Amino acid sequence: MGNCLVAQSGGPTAVINASLAGVIKANQLNPLYDHVYGGIHGIEGVLEDKLYDLTNVPASEINILKQTPSSALGTCRYKLKRGQAEDFERLLSIMEKHDIDTMFYIGGNDSMDTVDALSEWAVEHDVQRRFIGIPKTVDNDLVPVDHCPGFPSAAKLANLITHATKLDYDAYTRPEVFVLETMGRDAGWLAASCCLSGDVDLLVLPEVDFDRDWFLEQVKRKMDEKGSCYIVVSEGAHYEDGTYLSAGDSANDGFAHAVLGGAALTLKQMIVDAGIAPRGVVQDLSRAARSSNFAQAKIDVEEAFELGMSAHARSHDPAFTARVVGVRRAKTADGSYAPEYFAGPASEFANFVKAFPTEWILPDYQGITEEAIEYFRPLIAGEAPIIYGDNGLPKTIIPYNLR
Amino acid sequence: MGNCLVAQSGGPTAVINASLAGVIKANQLNPLYDHVYGGIHGIEGVLEDKLYDLTNVPASEINILKQTPSSALGTCRYKLKRGQAEDFERLLSIMEKHDIDTMFYIGGNDSMDTVDALSEWAVEHDVQRRFIGIPKTVDNDLVPVDHCPGFPSAAKLANLITHATKLDYDAYTRPEVFVLETMGRDAGWLAASCCLSGDVDLLVLPEVDFDRDWFLEQVKRKMDEKGSCYIVVSEGAHYEDGTYLSAGDSANDGFAHAVLGGAALTLKQMIVDAGIAPRGVVQDLSRAARSSNFAQAKIDVEEAFELGMSAHARSHDPAFTARVVGVRRAKTADGSYAPEYFAGPASEFANFVKAFPTEWILPDYQGITEEAIEYFRPLIAGEAPIIYGDNGLPKTIIPYNLR
Repeated sequence: MGNCLVAQSGGPTAVINASLAGVIKANQLNPLYDHVYGGIHGIEGVLEDKLYDLTNVPASEINILKQTPSSALGTCRYKLKRGQAEDFERLLSIMEKHDIDTMFYIGGNDSMDTVDALSEWAVEHDVQRRFIGIPKTVDNDLVPVDHCPGFPSAAKLANLITHATKLDYDAYTRPEVFVLETMGRDAGWLAASCCLSGDVDLLVLPEVDFDRDWFLEQVKRKMDEKGSCYIVVSEGAHYEDGTYLSAGDSANDGFAHAVLGGAALTLKQMIVDAGIAPRGVVQDLSRAARSSNFAQAKIDVEEAFELGMSAHARSHDPAFTARVVGVRRAKTADGSYAPEYFAGPASEFANFVKAFPTEWILPDYQGITEEAIEYFRPLIAGEAPIIYGDNGLPKTIIPYNLR
Repeated sequence: MGNCLVAQSGGPTAVINASLAGVIKANQLNPLYDHVYGGIHGIEGVLEDKLYDLTNVPASEINILKQTPSSALGTCRYKLKRGQAEDFERLLSIMEKHDIDTMFYIGGNDSMDTVDALSEWAVEHDVQRRFIGIPKTVDNDLVPVDHCPGFPSAAKLANLITHATKLDYDAYTRPEVFVLETMGRDAGWLAASCCLSGDVDLLVLPEVDFDRDWFLEQVKRKMDEKGSCYIVVSEGAHYEDGTYLSAGDSANDGFAHAVLGGAALTLKQMIVDAGIAPRGVVQDLSRAARSSNFAQAKIDVEEAFELGMSAHARSHDPAFTARVVGVRRAKTADGSYAPEYFAGPASEFANFVKAFPTEWILPDYQGITEEAIEYFRPLIAGEAPIIYGDNGLPKTIIPYNLR
């Protein structure tokens, strides 16, 4: 009986460690592997032989690990690409040295491509090692799944802050706009999700080329109608020519102002410069959106954990490689939400971006359709039971000292 | 038996409505007044005779009101000043019209000054009306109290986000700085509180004139030591000449870059320009810090509610005017935290700013003393029981349609 390796890659999420906890727990329930090693700082650390034994993490710590945000093993942006024979051989030597049969890689599109490339290379070189993916991304942009672990918690935090700041904004009589910015470079899922709160007047997504004049007309209409306008913008919003709003507005309008900072700052300045409102407030969720352990979505932490368990259990099959586990929405008799776990070819998870469906986008920046709302609703319903420390903060654990 | 009026003023907090709920509840338990009227949009709406009857808000709604952030009655920035006889007479006519004996005003320094000015004017003009203050401010800068309602919740949210984003930051190996910005124009309480999390490497407060070169030296030292530096800055941080960091760094350094945005953006750019780190991440808590209903501090919501009840109960005494209720820290046998409610002259609450004590500030931007940590600790300990809706968000209620 050999060992397995788990590593994390790409941007952290609020529940990526729940998937790690799932693999550890599953191996305690059914020890398919003698040891579960954690690779420190993703593939980067693994190539440097930085492993940490996670086999016997006690149950109490596993529960804390489930609610620890960020990547407990550290992460990396280094991408193993097809053709990097030296890296592949180095990885193989590490796996041989530690008798590692199976590598679980928790990450986004790029990491799933790594899983695919490694599996392919292993088959070509008759190497008996397996590579299995467990998805995560707050961007929610993987193709074959209903949603990605990490996204529901990010969406919950985004909705919590949308609703709270909307109430704060509404308390004033003075005319000003409010602009909330969310993550989402290529896909607008997180920004769109904010509409669930019922508080969004205008929504600016990367899926629709930004039309400055038409947008400003909508803002003006809202301000004229009710004296307020709550706007949500995705960081990846861009003009028709591909220029990001966050690159500043000067390239695309008649004004000479260079605007540094994000898309929200640009929109605010644009509205003020156009004389539609004398001032505006900007709220950028920034990193807080993806590390919101204090607002984990209930199904998110459950599913991320169970995906880790599912990946481990399926690896019982010696032919199980180049596969990624994922969640689909099950059909239920009463229409209530239920997850259905599946495994698919890593190639289907890799290198594609699932945009927010254009048929779910209302015209004129007016938000999203009822169908889209119904898609989001079950994802953020319910609260994860959080274990707090005496210091008033959720308990967290990082098994390995990363810094 | 006459009626009473409650209004809210200044910036909203996560628990300002708990004080409102306390007045309503207290009058249901002991109906000193026939009616409890809410003044809409602070003194501004009151002068326009915009009142709303809150006497019989049902218990279930009072519980939701306690956890509703922002100002449920709306707020204003309009300040009643001494000598504005016309406004004072207009207010009196509204109070006479509705048979209002007592006005409770929930707000910060300025509002407490309004309470004082109105009481003084009433005495001078032999007007039998009373004016009573209930404090709130996330800035925590009122002089006679141990802390201000609204601050503990803001501090809790700030610590939650500090800890979560610190873990996120630590997951990476690449050299970059992290800069978190909090509210606090004149006093650094909120920024300083973030040190409670144990995650802050450097702290920049308004209480210490900013020394660019010395600060950069400390950043460099941290980066050299451990490859990372987590910085917290108060929006009110400023140079010796009073120029805010948020006004941009160009006026005070040798560089030509104009930086728009807040203090955190300025610090990040300053560090990058100095070549100490190639990049940085900025997290601005902005409005989210003060409307964090999903992270209300337990004692904060309790005390804000009880201050409302206390103000109401004390108004039983016909001589009780020009007074503000507040919280001191009680001496307990076992040293555990307990609040002690008191009432003091409004003049002591008004027009002074309590800075974060300089003796609690460590030199070289290194954070705060253990004594300061011990001051903050009980304020954010414990979680308020939040009632969630089916939509996954805390239930909220705004009795009057503000927009």
